[in-house]
Amino acid sequence: MNYSPWQRQIRLIVTQALAEDLAAGDVTTTALISPELEGQGIITVEEEGILAGIEVAEEVFRQVDPGIHFEKLAFDGEKLSPGKAVAQVSGKAASILQAERTALNFLQHLSGIATETRRYVEAVSGTKAKILDTRKTVPGLRLLEKYAVRVGGGQNHRRSLGDGILIKDNHLAALRSQGLGIGEVVKIARQNAPHTLRIEVEVEALEQVEEALRAGADVIMLDNMPLDQMRQAVGLVQGRALIEASGGINLGNVRQVAETGVDFISIGALTHSIRALSFSLSLQASQPGIHI
Amino acid sequence: MNYSPWQRQIRLIVTQALAEDLAAGDVTTTALISPELEGQGIITVEEEGILAGIEVAEEVFRQVDPGIHFEKLAFDGEKLSPGKAVAQVSGKAASILQAERTALNFLQHLSGIATETRRYVEAVSGTKAKILDTRKTVPGLRLLEKYAVRVGGGQNHRRSLGDGILIKDNHLAALRSQGLGIGEVVKIARQNAPHTLRIEVEVEALEQVEEALRAGADVIMLDNMPLDQMRQAVGLVQGRALIEASGGINLGNVRQVAETGVDFISIGALTHSIRALSFSLSLQASQPGIHI
Amino acid sequence: MNYSPWQRQIRLIVTQALAEDLAAGDVTTTALISPELEGQGIITVEEEGILAGIEVAEEVFRQVDPGIHFEKLAFDGEKLSPGKAVAQVSGKAASILQAERTALNFLQHLSGIATETRRYVEAVSGTKAKILDTRKTVPGLRLLEKYAVRVGGGQNHRRSLGDGILIKDNHLAALRSQGLGIGEVVKIARQNAPHTLRIEVEVEALEQVEEALRAGADVIMLDNMPLDQMRQAVGLVQGRALIEASGGINLGNVRQVAETGVDFISIGALTHSIRALSFSLSLQASQPGIHI
Amino acid sequence: MNYSPWQRQIRLIVTQALAEDLAAGDVTTTALISPELEGQGIITVEEEGILAGIEVAEEVFRQVDPGIHFEKLAFDGEKLSPGKAVAQVSGKAASILQAERTALNFLQHLSGIATETRRYVEAVSGTKAKILDTRKTVPGLRLLEKYAVRVGGGQNHRRSLGDGILIKDNHLAALRSQGLGIGEVVKIARQNAPHTLRIEVEVEALEQVEEALRAGADVIMLDNMPLDQMRQAVGLVQGRALIEASGGINLGNVRQVAETGVDFISIGALTHSIRALSFSLSLQASQPGIHI
Amino acid sequence: MNYSPWQRQIRLIVTQALAEDLAAGDVTTTALISPELEGQGIITVEEEGILAGIEVAEEVFRQVDPGIHFEKLAFDGEKLSPGKAVAQVSGKAASILQAERTALNFLQHLSGIATETRRYVEAVSGTKAKILDTRKTVPGLRLLEKYAVRVGGGQNHRRSLGDGILIKDNHLAALRSQGLGIGEVVKIARQNAPHTLRIEVEVEALEQVEEALRAGADVIMLDNMPLDQMRQAVGLVQGRALIEASGGINLGNVRQVAETGVDFISIGALTHSIRALSFSLSLQASQPGIHI
Amino acid sequence: MNYSPWQRQIRLIVTQALAEDLAAGDVTTTALISPELEGQGIITVEEEGILAGIEVAEEVFRQVDPGIHFEKLAFDGEKLSPGKAVAQVSGKAASILQAERTALNFLQHLSGIATETRRYVEAVSGTKAKILDTRKTVPGLRLLEKYAVRVGGGQNHRRSLGDGILIKDNHLAALRSQGLGIGEVVKIARQNAPHTLRIEVEVEALEQVEEALRAGADVIMLDNMPLDQMRQAVGLVQGRALIEASGGINLGNVRQVAETGVDFISIGALTHSIRALSFSLSLQASQPGIHI
Repeated sequence: MNYSPWQRQIRLIVTQALAEDLAAGDVTTTALISPELEGQGIITVEEEGILAGIEVAEEVFRQVDPGIHFEKLAFDGEKLSPGKAVAQVSGKAASILQAERTALNFLQHLSGIATETRRYVEAVSGTKAKILDTRKTVPGLRLLEKYAVRVGGGQNHRRSLGDGILIKDNHLAALRSQGLGIGEVVKIARQNAPHTLRIEVEVEALEQVEEALRAGADVIMLDNMPLDQMRQAVGLVQGRALIEASGGINLGNVRQVAETGVDFISIGALTHSIRALSFSLSLQASQPGIHI
Repeated sequence: MNYSPWQRQIRLIVTQALAEDLAAGDVTTTALISPELEGQGIITVEEEGILAGIEVAEEVFRQVDPGIHFEKLAFDGEKLSPGKAVAQVSGKAASILQAERTALNFLQHLSGIATETRRYVEAVSGTKAKILDTRKTVPGLRLLEKYAVRVGGGQNHRRSLGDGILIKDNHLAALRSQGLGIGEVVKIARQNAPHTLRIEVEVEALEQVEEALRAGADVIMLDNMPLDQMRQAVGLVQGRALIEASGGINLGNVRQVAETGVDFISIGALTHSIRALSFSLSLQASQPGIHI
Repeated sequence: MNYSPWQRQIRLIVTQALAEDLAAGDVTTTALISPELEGQGIITVEEEGILAGIEVAEEVFRQVDPGIHFEKLAFDGEKLSPGKAVAQVSGKAASILQAERTALNFLQHLSGIATETRRYVEAVSGTKAKILDTRKTVPGLRLLEKYAVRVGGGQNHRRSLGDGILIKDNHLAALRSQGLGIGEVVKIARQNAPHTLRIEVEVEALEQVEEALRAGADVIMLDNMPLDQMRQAVGLVQGRALIEASGGINLGNVRQVAETGVDFISIGALTHSIRALSFSLSLQASQPGIHI
Repeated sequence: MNYSPWQRQIRLIVTQALAEDLAAGDVTTTALISPELEGQGIITVEEEGILAGIEVAEEVFRQVDPGIHFEKLAFDGEKLSPGKAVAQVSGKAASILQAERTALNFLQHLSGIATETRRYVEAVSGTKAKILDTRKTVPGLRLLEKYAVRVGGGQNHRRSLGDGILIKDNHLAALRSQGLGIGEVVKIARQNAPHTLRIEVEVEALEQVEEALRAGADVIMLDNMPLDQMRQAVGLVQGRALIEASGGINLGNVRQVAETGVDFISIGALTHSIRALSFSLSLQASQPGIHI
Repeated sequence: MNYSPWQRQIRLIVTQALAEDLAAGDVTTTALISPELEGQGIITVEEEGILAGIEVAEEVFRQVDPGIHFEKLAFDGEKLSPGKAVAQVSGKAASILQAERTALNFLQHLSGIATETRRYVEAVSGTKAKILDTRKTVPGLRLLEKYAVRVGGGQNHRRSLGDGILIKDNHLAALRSQGLGIGEVVKIARQNAPHTLRIEVEVEALEQVEEALRAGADVIMLDNMPLDQMRQAVGLVQGRALIEASGGINLGNVRQVAETGVDFISIGALTHSIRALSFSLSLQASQPGIHI
Repeated sequence: MNYSPWQRQIRLIVTQALAEDLAAGDVTTTALISPELEGQGIITVEEEGILAGIEVAEEVFRQVDPGIHFEKLAFDGEKLSPGKAVAQVSGKAASILQAERTALNFLQHLSGIATETRRYVEAVSGTKAKILDTRKTVPGLRLLEKYAVRVGGGQNHRRSLGDGILIKDNHLAALRSQGLGIGEVVKIARQNAPHTLRIEVEVEALEQVEEALRAGADVIMLDNMPLDQMRQAVGLVQGRALIEASGGINLGNVRQVAETGVDFISIGALTHSIRALSFSLSLQASQPGIHI
């Protein structure tokens, strides 16, 4: 989180989120609340979970009003009990009211992701398997969602199509029509890809594993494979490549998948089907003054 | 969907989503797929639900490659059975591969919202209650999420803080410290608000209902009220104002809430805790050519 | 003026105005004035009027050179006598010269609007009528022009097509061709509009007033109506709706209009045909140094 | 008007103007007008004047809905009689309603400028004096306002601080404190300025004219000078430099100024204090269809 | 060149380049050339070289005036003889004059890079060494410069810090102060880096080669190593990793470097110290019409 | 360098350059360097030259991490000996590593230009000729490149097509087809051009010089003229206009050109064919801490 383009993007995402809510002003607060009125708000979590996005919430308040003082009472990655206060904000009451919803919207979404990720990470603890996310993210929030996965203890798979070779079923289908099998495809990838990248290939059957290995694949993704086939694949590979399991994996079966000996388990639902973690803000005015 | 700023925003959202995935190129496709290779892809839904976002998906393909032909096979609002093809795309295989994930990410998220909204709408059918969304949206996607709610048969509450007066608990708390009760607050709002807007106020107890009415409230929001109190509130109001129920409402109890006689029921989970509807794209190359 | 999107837009408007004047540099100042030369400028009004935009002028100097010290000597809404100094700026002489024209351009335009608005407000003082602006603004400056109207004592009508229902002649004409009268149109609006908005409708004849009322109109706009008809309309409505007078109203007749008993009077010329209020900046260099 | 950056800026200005009016949608039209309803609108001028901005109005309709057909019935620079139709638009009725106000706002402002400019140009006809604008423009619209001046028959002075040397009173005051007189300042300008630019200097008294000439000034601006002094200045200069009259010039005295023999007369009010030329749009629906 | 973000960036780069030249208009052409005048221009290369950027030049003309017809007479990668016409443009003479310089600026810079790259590629022909560029590019043009390197027959090293692990001297220096040697650093990189990336490490001495290999480095960069040490390094590695030579390599010694058996040779001067390839545009007016 | 639009553009150019390198993060530094690790870097020049761009380099570090302390050890325009340290940076080691390449890329390019410019300036010292740049700049960097020319002691010709009249061969060719000679073209330019600009015209033969003079040209550009013809042209003009020599001028012949008595010599290679001046950054970690 320490280099500029990251922070620049966070600022931009927050700016756009605020524009959704505030571009036409806040007619209620303008009608009711004196600009001089000061207040204090407490942001509280309403259920158990893992906090993620506290600095994004802080950025929301900063953009609405640089005069707001935002004090963190909990940190990203922290396990929260229901009722735990995660931040205290103080300053203009109007500003707090205008930042409230947008800040909570970030917190509830990102903490929802971190919380679910943590469940998967704990489910496989003690095995060597690492939990990965996918590119099945909510459009516009990939950067933050992948951050929330890391906060939850997961690792990130590719951030984009530009930073890893992953030969998928549709690539194989397209090249099969040219008469090329998986081994030949892996070799072409190796020849044409930047020399800085490994080659990962998706397989659906055991026969493909050996062919991919011989062609020099560095990572093999087992797509929607039954547990016993996964185990066979691990036995076959014998450490000559890394193995990733993917498809149809949930909290009910992730431990069994991990125990087959795979290196990585990737879960689309970590980012595409998340229940928000519930937060609320409670405001108290701390100083007289009323709007005429 | 017919005026320019809407389409401009959709284009911008799609551009940003594509930037997340493609700004650094697509190293796999570049290494493997000849730019001349043509192909055809079918986008299929994998479970039952309501389609939303098909034109957003089309925009994704258009931005990746204006030469892609995108044929809609289903329309927003249509009820889909598992396996139903919703669109067929044809053109450069590389372009199809590069648009695939981003297009599916929009479809799965928006259709998830429309599908869940439809469940609520059907649950209250036959009552006068209308299902509303809230401002608890995923940052950056509010415009599209509110569209998906309409596709599912719901209605939109405020799009932003600028287009409706809604006096909430935190406004009342701030002004209570100034010695003002709910009736006085409603009157101030009426005096200061633009003359084009109605006044809606959130109440937590029956006593507040009559006070708000006397002060001239146009809409009363019952926050987290038990069913029997809701019924009493409806009896009390007798059509002198509109009534909105909010808080803690789910598919299990929404019918009972509707049957109390409220005019609107607002549901945050319609946008903040949605399970994606599953879609996939299957590609077939239709013409020879291979990358050297 | 205390939430972020407002200030963000002001900053943007100022940035664009400066780009018009300074994007290619300032060849005169660069050729003549040493970057080290310090100076002090006084901004003075040359005629009587109401000040508006002093913080926009401050923002102009801030953007040109954050090192400039800008001291306000008058405040928005203040009545100015000719020769009154409204601000004093000190810092680099070059920076003052480069900000001068753009700052004065904002001041003269916005103060012109506030001054004219004040004349109308004073003309109707003692009546219940409030002076409203319209959407007939100079493209790009609506936000600031509507602010200047408020500074002058007026109220804002709709800021945009998105924050109020106003059924105008062209809407009625379009629907008349479908066989719909004003009453039916008002009812459709009521049914389809967001529940947070009132319904305002423009009428040109007394017959339409009663029909609109019966259909549930909340506000009735009398368009270009003679004074006696206005009086009759007020009598007819008897407080069942708010009344707005519009069209052909000027300083010569606005008092008579107000005395008919209407609630609002809207004036397009407040923003579309304004005479600038004259300001000038006088510079004194305060420190030696000359450009080679 | 034929190179890209010009059109790009026009597009941007129109986009921003539309954003002011339409960013939050058009709640009235959405509630009332079926997206299928077709219509035809006529834009008519309501008073005599010179048309300017017809292509900007066209761009407004194009951005709102590329499907709108916009037919020009008059051209920029044309003298209009009251009631003259300047354009006919046809297409979706909703789109016409959404573009109406923004298009008229451009037309009324730019035609107001062209009309006033034409009055000045005609007032000096037969003399050699050319009418110039100034940099006293409405922030954000300088490009278009300077275009409208040309349409009215005027010429443009500097577009910005970057494309002409103009030594003004404040430059002279700043350098006087360094002990430098007008002649020395002109020489420094000549030495430091880009070799592609002439040197213009503002003088307030006849004594300065000769000094400026001797120092090599190419253009001399007479600031707020009485008519007889202007005549003397013209006699003094004898064609050795161009002469511009500026300050306090209006339709009542501009002919006398021109007859002193000056080359240019610059008028701030051409852009800062313009009365809008009145236009209206009248819509007729041409095809059945009604919104549910 | 077939996916959207690439083209979007090219459009943006061209837009910005045109803004540099045309944002304030073209005063010469406006003063002289009738907007109706048609013309034809031929773009000719004046010395031998490799063409790169012809589509960028086309984009320049397209943005200045979509009505210009641009016909390519040569293609990127083609070897050009002096006097060879590479494109013919026809349309408005004014538009051709306004696009000329910017189009030529792109062509001369990119073709300069492709031409120099080709010289290196030919110098090592017959060896297995591939010519790579570096991140020493001209700010703002990296995308295009890396494209020109490919056109010249070279390969791209990392496009950014985000798509490859390259442990450089400064990383090693920073970690040496923590007591970590090259082998330990490589291991940490392997453990923490995304599983999709290879590990490349820069070494300055033969002792480090073996240590890096043992730690699992996939690619070894020999920095500024004498030829005989390079040969020893190649012998030492024996195919267990790829080898890149870097530093101090020029056309005079690149063949010798290639013959040591290294896999890659990276050359900063391909992008940071390029002599432009000379192009000119010759215009002929083809139709009467003259500016008043 | 003291007004805002200049700095705004520098910031933008730096932002875009950083985006090229850092938009996808820095995978190497993230994998290896603890965010807590502090360090110190020295930027050193490796060969003799003139420094330009030190404040741009500072801006790079500022944008990457505002916490970095950047101390200038040399200033723009200073003559550097090999090994001279030009800046010292201290702060987070990770931030220094991420800013390094982009900062050096600016320094090496701009200092390359200033160094080459200085060589030309020294070559003509003692003559009255001034060294000018041209519009043959690297797209996107014109502002900075023209700044570097000034740092090197040169002067800037036109910054864009908007700030100077320069009638070139292609303008003359286009108008020749209309039957107009150089004298007539100069007269048309004088009549139509803004009154603030001089008229410069390119001539290729001595016959044209007198014709241009008679028509009132202020500056005459001798294009690719042999030395003896230049001398004749100077004799012919006798101070009635300024003279610029252009085309085919290099360090070998620039002194002879200057000695012909021309006022300006313009050199395209100052910006289009520059060898980068070599800089490096050496990092030392100054504080314990290691990444897990």
